[in-house]
Amino acid sequence: MPLDKLTIIGAGLLGGSIGRAAQSKGLAKRVAALVRRPESVAECLAIGIANEVTLDPEEAVDGAELVVICTPISGMAGLIRGILPALEPGVTITDVGSTKKRLVGKLTPLCEKAGVHFIGSHPMAGSEQTGPAAARANLFDDAICVITPTDNTDTGALVMVKRFWTDLGLHPVEMAPDLHDHLVARSSHLPHLLASTLTENVLNRTHSEQQARLCATGFRDMTRLAAGSPAIWRDIVGSNRNDILAAIDEFTEDLGRLRRLIAEDSMEKIEEWLQDTKTIRDNWSHSTDND
Amino acid sequence: MPLDKLTIIGAGLLGGSIGRAAQSKGLAKRVAALVRRPESVAECLAIGIANEVTLDPEEAVDGAELVVICTPISGMAGLIRGILPALEPGVTITDVGSTKKRLVGKLTPLCEKAGVHFIGSHPMAGSEQTGPAAARANLFDDAICVITPTDNTDTGALVMVKRFWTDLGLHPVEMAPDLHDHLVARSSHLPHLLASTLTENVLNRTHSEQQARLCATGFRDMTRLAAGSPAIWRDIVGSNRNDILAAIDEFTEDLGRLRRLIAEDSMEKIEEWLQDTKTIRDNWSHSTDND
Repeated sequence: MPLDKLTIIGAGLLGGSIGRAAQSKGLAKRVAALVRRPESVAECLAIGIANEVTLDPEEAVDGAELVVICTPISGMAGLIRGILPALEPGVTITDVGSTKKRLVGKLTPLCEKAGVHFIGSHPMAGSEQTGPAAARANLFDDAICVITPTDNTDTGALVMVKRFWTDLGLHPVEMAPDLHDHLVARSSHLPHLLASTLTENVLNRTHSEQQARLCATGFRDMTRLAAGSPAIWRDIVGSNRNDILAAIDEFTEDLGRLRRLIAEDSMEKIEEWLQDTKTIRDNWSHSTDND
Repeated sequence: MPLDKLTIIGAGLLGGSIGRAAQSKGLAKRVAALVRRPESVAECLAIGIANEVTLDPEEAVDGAELVVICTPISGMAGLIRGILPALEPGVTITDVGSTKKRLVGKLTPLCEKAGVHFIGSHPMAGSEQTGPAAARANLFDDAICVITPTDNTDTGALVMVKRFWTDLGLHPVEMAPDLHDHLVARSSHLPHLLASTLTENVLNRTHSEQQARLCATGFRDMTRLAAGSPAIWRDIVGSNRNDILAAIDEFTEDLGRLRRLIAEDSMEKIEEWLQDTKTIRDNWSHSTDND
């Protein structure tokens, strides 16, 4: 049973990909997108992100059963305030933000007061590319989607959000917002910051001009994330500060332990460690069908 | 003008790929491979790594004009000692080792005394996969090959080695062995050790069982290198200890600086830093046609 109307707020990489996937899978009779820049209207229509693209918040959400907020985190509360008056009671709002604790804490009461439901989501797919032109209908295939209900979450709204992500091709995992933030600080935010630090470190202008030539495919893969959107990642860092600091400290400690093994020239222990980490990595990639 | 005979010592990922590429590009009339395990003979012949595959060092190098050593670094000196008596005077030996200073210092006089030439090489291509089955003729396409001649290097041998890598599809870059080791400590060895440390850190058994599920494509790419061969990487770490320690220290300092920005909640500075590192990364990838 498709939704009558799905509204995407913000048609960048994620919002655009949701719009394309929802249309290709027939998840809604009408897909609408709210965009900010006038030139985006024609672009999003041409790419096929939605069948209705508008600059007008009221028009975008009019008649929507489900609204998905796909903007950087820091703008979400302001955007929701702008559309709340136009929403029918009981409508469900979800989002795609990479951190959940602060957002869910802020948006849940805001929506409740207005008689609509908010449920936090984090579809764990992406790319270092940005903008509607990078959107693809298969971006979310087989990705995990964390859904972060709270004690007061409306059951019907939760079923709808879960169903929506499942039908879009993702695997939903329910989790408390603070556990989500704690775990993604390690598995997502830390890797991103390491990629940026490695870029800064290796491609530093003070090094020999030969340095950049000696960067091969390993370096390329290890720094790909550094090409991601600075605005999105500023918001992520700002909204998950303590967990990210703890993840950096843990990592620095692990790296320090490795440094000591190398300084001691403990070749057997280093090979053992390399073998252990290889086994852990191999088991993970087999368990997820990644690689 | 193809070589009369090219001999590959060790038919793993790199040796096997060199054999396949040399044959498909017609770089030698005969390509021979020396392997260690009896079952590898049939396997390497079936995959087409060489047209002569043998367990006998003398047979492998008999009549060879160019010998390429493709084993882990720590075994190279022993192997060369084993084949020296069978080599004709003036033959050229090169290798594929990822560190050069210690190796060139050891192998150059060893070969000189026996009347043959050694020139260090480092073709900068690879994969986390290992073994002859992973070998591909296009592994080296457009990769950099560092060549590390010394003051006494024979000009004819240098020309042959440079020509060989070029014809194989690589871009040769000449560099002193110690500069090579210093630069790849940053651009190759550090990324590998960060990938292994990140694997250990994030997939640690003490974390919530949900942790591994929340590892997506960013984590996958940032840890791919951790699946590499422990024996090869033990040798690399052991033969480039001081430069690797310095690279870890530099990186830890950079990460500590980022940590301070995050702890201070300096959102503007963090966005600026993310933008700077993105620009550096984008410029690098455009300059190399990577991504």
